[in-house]
Amino acid sequence: MSTRTVSINTDIGEGFGVWGVGDEAPLMGQVTAANIACGFHAGDPDILRRTCEMASARGVSVGAQVSYRDLVGFGRRFIDVPTPTLVNDIVYQIGALQAFARIAGTEVSYVKAHGALYNTAARHHGHARAIVEAIELLDPELPVLCQYDTVLWNIALDAGLRAHAEVFIDRSYTDDALLVPRSHPEALVLDPSAAAKRAVQMVATGVVDSVCNQSATVVPEDAETIAMCIHSDTPGAVDIARQTRSLLEQNGVALVRIGAPRHG
Amino acid sequence: MSTRTVSINTDIGEGFGVWGVGDEAPLMGQVTAANIACGFHAGDPDILRRTCEMASARGVSVGAQVSYRDLVGFGRRFIDVPTPTLVNDIVYQIGALQAFARIAGTEVSYVKAHGALYNTAARHHGHARAIVEAIELLDPELPVLCQYDTVLWNIALDAGLRAHAEVFIDRSYTDDALLVPRSHPEALVLDPSAAAKRAVQMVATGVVDSVCNQSATVVPEDAETIAMCIHSDTPGAVDIARQTRSLLEQNGVALVRIGAPRHG
Amino acid sequence: MSTRTVSINTDIGEGFGVWGVGDEAPLMGQVTAANIACGFHAGDPDILRRTCEMASARGVSVGAQVSYRDLVGFGRRFIDVPTPTLVNDIVYQIGALQAFARIAGTEVSYVKAHGALYNTAARHHGHARAIVEAIELLDPELPVLCQYDTVLWNIALDAGLRAHAEVFIDRSYTDDALLVPRSHPEALVLDPSAAAKRAVQMVATGVVDSVCNQSATVVPEDAETIAMCIHSDTPGAVDIARQTRSLLEQNGVALVRIGAPRHG
Amino acid sequence: MSTRTVSINTDIGEGFGVWGVGDEAPLMGQVTAANIACGFHAGDPDILRRTCEMASARGVSVGAQVSYRDLVGFGRRFIDVPTPTLVNDIVYQIGALQAFARIAGTEVSYVKAHGALYNTAARHHGHARAIVEAIELLDPELPVLCQYDTVLWNIALDAGLRAHAEVFIDRSYTDDALLVPRSHPEALVLDPSAAAKRAVQMVATGVVDSVCNQSATVVPEDAETIAMCIHSDTPGAVDIARQTRSLLEQNGVALVRIGAPRHG
Repeated sequence: MSTRTVSINTDIGEGFGVWGVGDEAPLMGQVTAANIACGFHAGDPDILRRTCEMASARGVSVGAQVSYRDLVGFGRRFIDVPTPTLVNDIVYQIGALQAFARIAGTEVSYVKAHGALYNTAARHHGHARAIVEAIELLDPELPVLCQYDTVLWNIALDAGLRAHAEVFIDRSYTDDALLVPRSHPEALVLDPSAAAKRAVQMVATGVVDSVCNQSATVVPEDAETIAMCIHSDTPGAVDIARQTRSLLEQNGVALVRIGAPRHG
Repeated sequence: MSTRTVSINTDIGEGFGVWGVGDEAPLMGQVTAANIACGFHAGDPDILRRTCEMASARGVSVGAQVSYRDLVGFGRRFIDVPTPTLVNDIVYQIGALQAFARIAGTEVSYVKAHGALYNTAARHHGHARAIVEAIELLDPELPVLCQYDTVLWNIALDAGLRAHAEVFIDRSYTDDALLVPRSHPEALVLDPSAAAKRAVQMVATGVVDSVCNQSATVVPEDAETIAMCIHSDTPGAVDIARQTRSLLEQNGVALVRIGAPRHG
Repeated sequence: MSTRTVSINTDIGEGFGVWGVGDEAPLMGQVTAANIACGFHAGDPDILRRTCEMASARGVSVGAQVSYRDLVGFGRRFIDVPTPTLVNDIVYQIGALQAFARIAGTEVSYVKAHGALYNTAARHHGHARAIVEAIELLDPELPVLCQYDTVLWNIALDAGLRAHAEVFIDRSYTDDALLVPRSHPEALVLDPSAAAKRAVQMVATGVVDSVCNQSATVVPEDAETIAMCIHSDTPGAVDIARQTRSLLEQNGVALVRIGAPRHG
Repeated sequence: MSTRTVSINTDIGEGFGVWGVGDEAPLMGQVTAANIACGFHAGDPDILRRTCEMASARGVSVGAQVSYRDLVGFGRRFIDVPTPTLVNDIVYQIGALQAFARIAGTEVSYVKAHGALYNTAARHHGHARAIVEAIELLDPELPVLCQYDTVLWNIALDAGLRAHAEVFIDRSYTDDALLVPRSHPEALVLDPSAAAKRAVQMVATGVVDSVCNQSATVVPEDAETIAMCIHSDTPGAVDIARQTRSLLEQNGVALVRIGAPRHG
């Protein structure tokens, strides 16, 4: 149906010290890309090490999930960081993860913002620019995962970076292609079969049904690879990922790592 | 007089947030190697960036000054970290600094422990082993700076790593080649001329006069490069470094970067 | 059988940010005293507030569970803090908890060290002294919970403080009345019925069977109140606490809050 | 000239670990109220202890200078903290300081927000409300220091709290009684004599000349006590404070502690 390929990513390694995370192996087994916390909102060095090794062993791409510096708030709170400082905060996080990826026999293949930084960079020029600048400084080949047609998306493309349009398997959309807030009763898509069908729809058409029964454009026409996200804390995330994966494959969509050569 | 070469290192970049450091440029101008704090005892990402750029601009080697995770204690307090965790703590710090070194056009050329970790690794097998293991994992070519004939020295050599014997220009020694504790009235060598003469003595003979007028062996016979340290908080550090440098050069001792090819 | 009274305490409120704790209500319903983390090894202000309110609502005493400053290590690693600094670290923690206890309509009734500080203060004069000094400064009426005949126990009594001898319901003892290390296969007492019988034995006789079938003295003869601890992370902790409570009451032992007037 | 009394406050105790502060004694000798950092933007337990003791010894009021939790940013960056969490963050800070004030023989007499929280609470209902709520919970008698006619000022008065109108000796004002941003060349008033005259003007008339030669109303008509602030990092702060103090006294204005009974 489509020559597009799809990567499936999830947040992972988001514990700290004794505050571990559950068994991440099942979800790691369903995704092609792991957004690994780098220590600013979660993730201590032991966890970075272990998570990189797990991703490497399973052939899953390692992505730097960069965040505001805010352990107690889990990176979910906007912080009005000066842009030059945010650039350096992001460089620091990516650099630390690169070391662990390297010793695990893999590498950091992409960058994705976490939590409040993800949401802020969708509309805040300075903070979007900080992400772009950190990537330019470290490795302009690293793709950034972000939503289509946001401020970050546009700044990244203008800078000549690779941006992967990100869509959410487990979340509903408004007519404007924004996520329905979690406080809304229909915010989550919890039925694996429905989620899988939406995923196929997004890949095939680039649009998705909104909660108001309109359609929202979530993928640019010329997108070669779509980054599909499943939140690790969504109830039934493993099943949702498994059924989505399966239906995509039945429809001839190739699942790929990020940064890997296309084979579709 | 000697075919030995000498590097002169100092701790640098040890502020945090608004708590800056003084003007580090004069001391940076006298050394050949900068031990840059990596964020665990001092150093935030802005400072790492700025300090790497300053070192790169002046042709000074960048070293990772790794520490226990202890901002409030400035890394001066022993922490009984499990060895595998300490390995990862060190990898994290080196990795973060590598990113900043790279974007400043240079690289991390050596590793030196800070404060309590420096002192502990001189006698504690597990923590010495952690430093060695982190280097083995990341880059076995990176030399480690440590005192001669300590536990870290011996473990590093046994592992096939390069160890640079470190001597202190501004500190007195006991007969056993240990530093006289700072609480002792004669702990510091503050006279630049005396300090410079001791430096030449150490390079030429490998021994230094102890506070008890005995001699302490601080350098192995076969050492090709000696790492000479001047503490940035020693009163008159810039003058001590300048006179030492000058007297070494008058005696035909080549001052070298760390990791740079010998030219002497 | 005994005129001794017994308090039952447990560690509680040991999450941080999103890293919550499980449902603490069932265990809170079985104890008479809650050792609340104060922010140095666990516990953020929201958790302190909520935990104090829960303790107050159930009539459970609030104790300050003070620790080394070590979130990433959960206070389980010895830190060689200078004694005067440790005094102030403890004052800070108790002060913060006092504010939350007060607004929850209760008060801080006792002090107990956590993790590595608990173990260290049993044998390290400086750190034991720090706990005693912090209590003397803030409120010499506050009892300290610690094991009988340890360094902390003796220093506290010498200083005229009230010390409550602490025994562990869920742990085995050596002949020397030390806890059998967790690495030992018989370290834990997991059978609620066995645990309850041991508890009654300790109250009645002051001794407990050791793992070598000797007896270990864990309570001083003249102890009026025994502090019994159940670890919240012991499997089946709620059942162990419930059966212990029940058997103690059947044997006429009064369960009391800490700091509350005796009624036995 | 006026029956108004004046307190003079300054920020103090704003170091962290080895990153000390300069000699604070001279400025402490000129003020009547010390805004002591509580550990969230600056201030470790040792510093809290020492600063409370210094304030107590000199008869200077102790105020809790509360902040967002942001050591690396020194509390100068807005953080979008949920209001209930901010309430608890503030309670935590005040509680910790109360412990140190108590053991220094004094007490916390007022609350003042620091940095970004100060600026935010002037216009952000949730964060202003958080400050008010923390004070209501802990001690509704504690006055809050803030600028006249800001959101915090109005919410505090509506809640029945005592608010002290704060004016700045060392800063210029816009026509709207806002501070001229630090980036403006005339932002600071550095001439001690000019600063002192402005202080007298503000006390006598409640208005101050703006940078546009208009007048800005900075004090409500019925204010009994004005809180005058001198920033500790303003060049020549001690001289500015001394001359201001002296000129106020020559004009019959009584300098008072905060929370102390009026004597004017």
